[in-house]
Amino acid sequence: MNRSRPDTLAEVGERAWLKRVRRLMAEDGAELPLGIGDDAAILPSAPGPLVVSTDALVEGVHFRFDWTTPRDLGHKALAVNLSDLAAMGARPLAAFLALSVPPQVRLADLTAFFLGLRAEGRKWGCPLAGGDMTRGPQWTLTVTVLGRLGVAGRKGRPAGPLRRDGARPGDWVYVTGWPGRSGAGREALRRGLSAAALARAHRRPVPRLREGAWLAALGCVDAALDLSDGLWDDAGKLAEASSVRLDLWRDALPVDPAVNRLARKLRRDPLDWVLFGGEDYELLLATRRRLDLARDWPAVEDLAPLSLIGRVAAGRGVRLLDAAGRPLPVRDRTWKHF
Amino acid sequence: MNRSRPDTLAEVGERAWLKRVRRLMAEDGAELPLGIGDDAAILPSAPGPLVVSTDALVEGVHFRFDWTTPRDLGHKALAVNLSDLAAMGARPLAAFLALSVPPQVRLADLTAFFLGLRAEGRKWGCPLAGGDMTRGPQWTLTVTVLGRLGVAGRKGRPAGPLRRDGARPGDWVYVTGWPGRSGAGREALRRGLSAAALARAHRRPVPRLREGAWLAALGCVDAALDLSDGLWDDAGKLAEASSVRLDLWRDALPVDPAVNRLARKLRRDPLDWVLFGGEDYELLLATRRRLDLARDWPAVEDLAPLSLIGRVAAGRGVRLLDAAGRPLPVRDRTWKHF
Repeated sequence: MNRSRPDTLAEVGERAWLKRVRRLMAEDGAELPLGIGDDAAILPSAPGPLVVSTDALVEGVHFRFDWTTPRDLGHKALAVNLSDLAAMGARPLAAFLALSVPPQVRLADLTAFFLGLRAEGRKWGCPLAGGDMTRGPQWTLTVTVLGRLGVAGRKGRPAGPLRRDGARPGDWVYVTGWPGRSGAGREALRRGLSAAALARAHRRPVPRLREGAWLAALGCVDAALDLSDGLWDDAGKLAEASSVRLDLWRDALPVDPAVNRLARKLRRDPLDWVLFGGEDYELLLATRRRLDLARDWPAVEDLAPLSLIGRVAAGRGVRLLDAAGRPLPVRDRTWKHF
Repeated sequence: MNRSRPDTLAEVGERAWLKRVRRLMAEDGAELPLGIGDDAAILPSAPGPLVVSTDALVEGVHFRFDWTTPRDLGHKALAVNLSDLAAMGARPLAAFLALSVPPQVRLADLTAFFLGLRAEGRKWGCPLAGGDMTRGPQWTLTVTVLGRLGVAGRKGRPAGPLRRDGARPGDWVYVTGWPGRSGAGREALRRGLSAAALARAHRRPVPRLREGAWLAALGCVDAALDLSDGLWDDAGKLAEASSVRLDLWRDALPVDPAVNRLARKLRRDPLDWVLFGGEDYELLLATRRRLDLARDWPAVEDLAPLSLIGRVAAGRGVRLLDAAGRPLPVRDRTWKHF
């Protein structure tokens, strides 16, 4: 171990560290009129409305370094915010980070975090344009992302935004990907079980930006949101915002085979994770026409699978129906923030 | 005490509380295409580059409830971010808040915080457009503000941005208002001394938005930043960004009479606060022509006082000069974040 190199933030000091961050991230923000380092960043003028979202992750509440590496965290901090843009059908422009860390934090961990953030940003064309770094008793990171809506059709009308309050009775309910993978992955990590794909879904969720933009361009999506608290709870939010009821079909819910395997091993009901696991970052949506997946969801676009899982009805709340259309009793196991 | 009314966030629950926030803030964001409550907010299309800044405040690090009320905090959280826009010469568009609080937080305190944020936003035309609320071991609040540059002259060229890297040897150095008031106010609060104006400067700093926009429109400002860490430290940042030296004239530094009174009482050097107190949120700037204050800084605009405090020279760093132009020894007492 080379003791002459500063090992912690307290040793190297804030200003020297910020210079390093600037060098690390500079290339990605090179197109911006003014990136990291001034009082504020300047983003170029662009047409159309702006889409903005902000989300915080708190150590010990949203993540633990026991099974999340600093690099994973960099990826995830940006990904969960990009997921909000995806849920509006927007494309990312730039990200901002407010980071609080204890002074004893190791520079290697900080660097790994920023490299994760940078890699995720490169994947989606979302450079870090500015931020703030302060001391705090634990890691707390707030990312704010800015995006723009795309255009749809030859007339160039704006695609989206996909709001959550537009669902109407009769709409078809779809979900992307595999809700439950992240929750099952968290459980596997907690128990030290090997389940690589599930663990990855938990540590490095993939924002459904391509899917969101595609859905917005389809022009038949009445409402959408991204799943952060779990399918059951978030379906309730969509229902409430739209003043409708969502009927979900139990047998139509997509369950990843790896989730099924873990459930069997732990003698759990896989639907516990699918409905209540949380942190899925899949998109839940209501469409006014039933999609023809072969035409509307082309494999060549490399989109996540899309599953028809229910229907919107007049009323309120969410119901889970069996194959005969009978409501099933549901005990809400959603994790409560407060 | 009416025990049937929920008193803490944990008792009322997150969703019910967020509804209340939405009601509280809805009117201010009524002009926005989509405000609080969806996955992301939508801001209207507007011409010109966007200015964005983000800042975090952590309980126990940046503020203590011993001498800051939740309402003060709401004001300050927004004000310190608006100060970054002011330092670019920008006008605010909208704000976003990520708030972490312990579950035991009293609803009365949360409400007071949001009322402070709302009042500050109304003062400057900056509605809260969205945010995120999570659990955390202490209050941590990150505000992100978006702004636009104004226009200058009859030709409508953009005014600003006032970057920090444009100062050149020969420039004149100015500062707005009274640096040191906030630091002295913090000291008075800590000691339980009565010094209302100083305490107010610490608890409710006023962002110099009018002054920043005015300076940007003048067209002769080469560099500017807002004072958050203290005049000495921030002058160093401006010097470093611009690759120049700043010579500050000790006898020209503006000292509020109340700061002088407190210094005499505590047998302190008032310049300790003026140079190192921090959290001033005044603007420090370098202009290529010496301003004619009667013409360039009209009283009718209700601008904070502007003081000529030094000159830019070739070199690096910051020097404090006496009346004869001799450098004075300075021991840097700036508070270090890490």
